[in-house]
Amino acid sequence: MSTDTFPPNSVGITETQYFTFAADEPFVFESGATLGPITLAYQTYGKLDAAHANAVLICHALSGGAHAAGYRSLQDTKPGWWDSAIGPGKAFDTDRFFVISSNIIGSCYGSTGPGSINPVTGKSYGLTFPVVTIGDMVRAQERLLDHLGIARLLCVVGGSMGGMQALEWAAHHPARVRAVIPLATTAHSNAMHIALSEVGRQAIYADPNWQGGDYYENHRRPDAGLAVARMIAHITYLSEESMHRKFGRRLQDHERFGYQFQTEFQVESYLKHQGMAFTQRFDANSYLYITKAIDYFDLSAASNSLAAAFAGAKDVKFLVVSFTSDWLYPSHQSKEIVRALTVSGADVASSERVGPVKCAAARIQRRACPERSRRSLVAR
Amino acid sequence: MSTDTFPPNSVGITETQYFTFAADEPFVFESGATLGPITLAYQTYGKLDAAHANAVLICHALSGGAHAAGYRSLQDTKPGWWDSAIGPGKAFDTDRFFVISSNIIGSCYGSTGPGSINPVTGKSYGLTFPVVTIGDMVRAQERLLDHLGIARLLCVVGGSMGGMQALEWAAHHPARVRAVIPLATTAHSNAMHIALSEVGRQAIYADPNWQGGDYYENHRRPDAGLAVARMIAHITYLSEESMHRKFGRRLQDHERFGYQFQTEFQVESYLKHQGMAFTQRFDANSYLYITKAIDYFDLSAASNSLAAAFAGAKDVKFLVVSFTSDWLYPSHQSKEIVRALTVSGADVASSERVGPVKCAAARIQRRACPERSRRSLVAR
Repeated sequence: MSTDTFPPNSVGITETQYFTFAADEPFVFESGATLGPITLAYQTYGKLDAAHANAVLICHALSGGAHAAGYRSLQDTKPGWWDSAIGPGKAFDTDRFFVISSNIIGSCYGSTGPGSINPVTGKSYGLTFPVVTIGDMVRAQERLLDHLGIARLLCVVGGSMGGMQALEWAAHHPARVRAVIPLATTAHSNAMHIALSEVGRQAIYADPNWQGGDYYENHRRPDAGLAVARMIAHITYLSEESMHRKFGRRLQDHERFGYQFQTEFQVESYLKHQGMAFTQRFDANSYLYITKAIDYFDLSAASNSLAAAFAGAKDVKFLVVSFTSDWLYPSHQSKEIVRALTVSGADVASSERVGPVKCAAARIQRRACPERSRRSLVAR
Repeated sequence: MSTDTFPPNSVGITETQYFTFAADEPFVFESGATLGPITLAYQTYGKLDAAHANAVLICHALSGGAHAAGYRSLQDTKPGWWDSAIGPGKAFDTDRFFVISSNIIGSCYGSTGPGSINPVTGKSYGLTFPVVTIGDMVRAQERLLDHLGIARLLCVVGGSMGGMQALEWAAHHPARVRAVIPLATTAHSNAMHIALSEVGRQAIYADPNWQGGDYYENHRRPDAGLAVARMIAHITYLSEESMHRKFGRRLQDHERFGYQFQTEFQVESYLKHQGMAFTQRFDANSYLYITKAIDYFDLSAASNSLAAAFAGAKDVKFLVVSFTSDWLYPSHQSKEIVRALTVSGADVASSERVGPVKCAAARIQRRACPERSRRSLVAR
């Protein structure tokens, strides 16, 4: 198929592939639950070299999917969520690297999750789906690597929850990664993260259409609750300063206060749009599962020391990137990672970036993707 | 009635009083709407001196009421929301000052608001109640002062939305105040404030029991939506650091992860409790009206300059207090007030307090109440 209509540095049309784990090897979750079959959706860009040594794994954030680069069709005008960083000549140069973008277990974007059909009942799992952790997501990706014949990744990169996966790779599977780039993330969700997650979940629980998670066969879905959850989260993706720059106190479609409860300010209109649009593309139960996975994430829990968690990662190179304006994952959380890695003896570089604020995980990642990482870490 | 059982520096048992505006003088809202009769609930502590020159007005925050000091009965164990600052020998010394605590118009704590009965229909106003502004709240308080025979206040003090009222007094009624103490507040709600308000309102709108605000005669009230709104707001009253100190990642009632959607972490339990408890004491429509008033607040709107807004306040003394850990009303917003006041030629002192974080408007105010303010501003 021709890619003439796409920018010259685009990977062109990309297709999602699906890998279903062998039926005789059910997946054991961190909680102890087992489930099978499990399918992971993924995309790849570029070619795996003969030594199988040029693979880069891209990990997505809360609401992401496998479609990180390129276009779904010739008519598609919106490329994948990290298209700016993936392609010929781009930071993750598909002329040189084999880039894998793996959707997580628990998602609603093609991988097995609470909205998938339970083959035993013939109905969606809903809340009978096991609780998922970041560790589970990574162990599922590990099976995908086995399937693709990749013993060791050149690099794992991701922002926000994608950064948690990257850190999880380094801490628990260090022999399988050469370099790790966690962006705008933390090594453990703190009380504020958990609080924000929980309020979003409560908004979903409060929606009568949620029905205890058993809504897939109903006419109505818990869109109102999911929209509120997304609006809360969306505020956390913006800083006070960026919201001020973007919206200020500008009114929506009128010049004076209307003194009513309809939309008065542009920021209200924007948020409502974000909330509603999200319900068109995301599943409320997946939102519950993924936020829960983020809450559980705490690399230092097992060893009581973050440095100890990275004890096996001495041969892994790290580039830790944070943003000074990020208040969900402020720079001090990245500095804690850098300190722990330094104590553990790992080879670590870090970058604290001033300026453009986190507008969404995808946008951070677009901005974050540093030439530096390409030169010092991703390049062999 | 004996106050033997109360601490010696308590004002003892306090009673709420009600002032209803004269029937022939309906209240005109900033929106142009008129309404009557209007009642304000208020409490007073101490005695008005012969010159009527020792009155201090206390303005409450979003969810406050008139009961700022003392106890409702001998059996009452929980004093008013700013009892630590109001009483004999306390910062607002009731041996010297006549302290007035006025509930705002639009509230559900005794003043006329959306839950009040419309005498024309015999039913609650609901959303037919006019939209209220901070300016409306203050002009209603002005009528209360007229009623009490107070031409000029010694001091107006308040935190958060109470601080907005204090600033409104200074900007638009400067001849009626000698000193103003705005605590942890801003001169204009910004895009982030509006966004947070709107998400809370959306949570209420999304509750099917809300019924367009017409729920007062129904069996069910929009408690689920109001609880979510309160949980969102409550997170903004805490800082990342204070939540970490208070809760960390401690689990609730168990030692290991349960891997389920019930409460896992203490912070979740705390937030849910805060949300549910709030529904027992607050009205969802009042929440909508008061957050809307906060959104509209912008002292610089009329003059395009904050300094110009304070042009008439040259004879007013100011003490502006902020908290470095406050992210809802960060110190830079208070500094902007201080700069504008300085430019306008007002007598201004300021205090940026490190440390104890804002846990709620009431708690800030408890901490904020500075000896300094008593000496330099409140004392004649």
